[in-house]
Amino acid sequence: MDKGRVEAFSDGVFAIIITIMVLDLKVPHGEHLDALLPLLPVFLSYVLSFLYVGIYWSNHHHLFQASRKVTGSVLLANLHLLFWLSLFPFVTGWMGENHFGELPAAVYGGVLLMAAVAYWLLQNALIAADRGDSVLERALGLDWKGKLSPALYLLAILASGWQAWLAQSIYVCVALMWLVPDRRIERVLSR
Amino acid sequence: MDKGRVEAFSDGVFAIIITIMVLDLKVPHGEHLDALLPLLPVFLSYVLSFLYVGIYWSNHHHLFQASRKVTGSVLLANLHLLFWLSLFPFVTGWMGENHFGELPAAVYGGVLLMAAVAYWLLQNALIAADRGDSVLERALGLDWKGKLSPALYLLAILASGWQAWLAQSIYVCVALMWLVPDRRIERVLSR
Amino acid sequence: MDKGRVEAFSDGVFAIIITIMVLDLKVPHGEHLDALLPLLPVFLSYVLSFLYVGIYWSNHHHLFQASRKVTGSVLLANLHLLFWLSLFPFVTGWMGENHFGELPAAVYGGVLLMAAVAYWLLQNALIAADRGDSVLERALGLDWKGKLSPALYLLAILASGWQAWLAQSIYVCVALMWLVPDRRIERVLSR
Amino acid sequence: MDKGRVEAFSDGVFAIIITIMVLDLKVPHGEHLDALLPLLPVFLSYVLSFLYVGIYWSNHHHLFQASRKVTGSVLLANLHLLFWLSLFPFVTGWMGENHFGELPAAVYGGVLLMAAVAYWLLQNALIAADRGDSVLERALGLDWKGKLSPALYLLAILASGWQAWLAQSIYVCVALMWLVPDRRIERVLSR
Repeated sequence: MDKGRVEAFSDGVFAIIITIMVLDLKVPHGEHLDALLPLLPVFLSYVLSFLYVGIYWSNHHHLFQASRKVTGSVLLANLHLLFWLSLFPFVTGWMGENHFGELPAAVYGGVLLMAAVAYWLLQNALIAADRGDSVLERALGLDWKGKLSPALYLLAILASGWQAWLAQSIYVCVALMWLVPDRRIERVLSR
Repeated sequence: MDKGRVEAFSDGVFAIIITIMVLDLKVPHGEHLDALLPLLPVFLSYVLSFLYVGIYWSNHHHLFQASRKVTGSVLLANLHLLFWLSLFPFVTGWMGENHFGELPAAVYGGVLLMAAVAYWLLQNALIAADRGDSVLERALGLDWKGKLSPALYLLAILASGWQAWLAQSIYVCVALMWLVPDRRIERVLSR
Repeated sequence: MDKGRVEAFSDGVFAIIITIMVLDLKVPHGEHLDALLPLLPVFLSYVLSFLYVGIYWSNHHHLFQASRKVTGSVLLANLHLLFWLSLFPFVTGWMGENHFGELPAAVYGGVLLMAAVAYWLLQNALIAADRGDSVLERALGLDWKGKLSPALYLLAILASGWQAWLAQSIYVCVALMWLVPDRRIERVLSR
Repeated sequence: MDKGRVEAFSDGVFAIIITIMVLDLKVPHGEHLDALLPLLPVFLSYVLSFLYVGIYWSNHHHLFQASRKVTGSVLLANLHLLFWLSLFPFVTGWMGENHFGELPAAVYGGVLLMAAVAYWLLQNALIAADRGDSVLERALGLDWKGKLSPALYLLAILASGWQAWLAQSIYVCVALMWLVPDRRIERVLSR
């Protein structure tokens, strides 16, 4: 089975998710600054989610590049990941419109957590598909970012009921942590 | 004629259908749990349709992988399938917003039934295109899932007027039946 | 310059146009038949436009398959075609919501006419790019469908102010005329 | 690292941006000319943005064609460009609905300016990735269009508070300037 169409379909879904999130930025009716200002939280929540979906696309790209085989379990694990990512427009809009309130922030973290779990399952399905000779497995190494992120999301969910700004800070930090280009896979592949 | 662009166009349509369905999950105005709860039926109906579109994409992928030739009839049959799938966002939203009521459940089943018929027509067009030497034909074998599904959809449509939960149970069971990875085509192709 | 990315971008635009048109089918609030019936004209106008966009995709696919070179003029002509096609969701929704009234039917025909002109310009740009050795030119032959369609659209626009059903009949007939698979390009390519 | 998937993902995002902008053209309720006329400014602003996104796609296409390597910085710079382009549907709708008012025109220019900066960063990331042997660098030459555009956008932003029509004229002129096919890259590549 070839990887091409799985990547093409996933790219399509990633591209649509990242783009329709902007539809939550509803065109305001006035033409002055006071019509634009109330949109600021929705805009900030859009920027955060754009970063996350962009990072997921980039990691997904690396994941499949370091793999050779696509099995039925990989297809299922990939669909499962895309499902949680498809909820981003909803939770992003809800968090933005409610000015980063408690419950919306916790639900946002919940979707981030589930997407991280789904990504980890996909990673394992791809490693299993290459049976004992996985370039991906060697490239990942300790995978500390992959292990730290779900723990931080969990922390943010717990924090959201106590100090909402703390949850947001954690979400931003995890995004920035992933933005630092990850050269592991590039390095192992170039050998 | 090459398969590449038919697959690319279909992938695009699949990706958009599976993603815009989430737009029916309208961002609620409150920020508390009681604002989120009314969305539960819409969410459940979204999960069901996500599964169905995902399964259709995966089967479509296998179908074209096991085929060699694309004819004018294949293009038409493919468009016909995409048409019925394109109605998923509408029937999903309608069924969800009406809490799985009788008529919405029956109409949902009707679209599932028509999509299954369209899939069967596409399958036959692809087999005919490979004239007597179809890998797909051998791979399908008895195709009991393909034959059972339309019968079950019909049953669900009839059941929806009597016991609405029965129709939903059938829809869920058919989806689960297809989720079990189908190794027929992989097996025949690897020979 | 390679054709691959022009086709990929166009496929994306085609896929999105054909799919977002269904968003005009707004989910009704009631769950009974009387909630569904008012949507019938919008649905019929959706079916018509789905056919047209599908036919345009299929013809576009053939056009690029029979061509070898992509120039700056081809890129421009292609964008110009996509522009007119991108207006389909708007004119389809307007015609459907106004029950195929006079002006909406005429505007719909206007967009069909402009798309046909844009398609003809793209065809010429592709023939010019292959300088005197165009497979496409030979494959098109007399191109009677391509020449007849704009004339029929013009007729329909004129008819829409007089007998609205006549305009619709012409739109349906032209679509059916194109649905008959066109083997010209396949035949010339297979030689 | 291969360019294919970066191009595919970007093509998807470009295709969606250029197509969902038409959703701001809301289907009017009347069926007569007076229902259509108020949409004229929204339509004109759509045409302008369609041109810009089309030009960006075409330039993006040339950029990657003249490059060989994709690094982590290129992925980031590409995401950054797509972010600013993803704001087009919002600023286009806002400018159209407010009849090209002062602030909307300035904000539109701001997004154009940021997209131009992001494009310039992407260009540099691609040149840096090919380390001292960049076809792209030679092809760009003086790159006067790339240097003139941001200056003109800045001028338009300043002009928007004084004479709104002047800002719009500048936006139209820059678009037309880019529409003239740019043969630099084609010429260098064909050598």
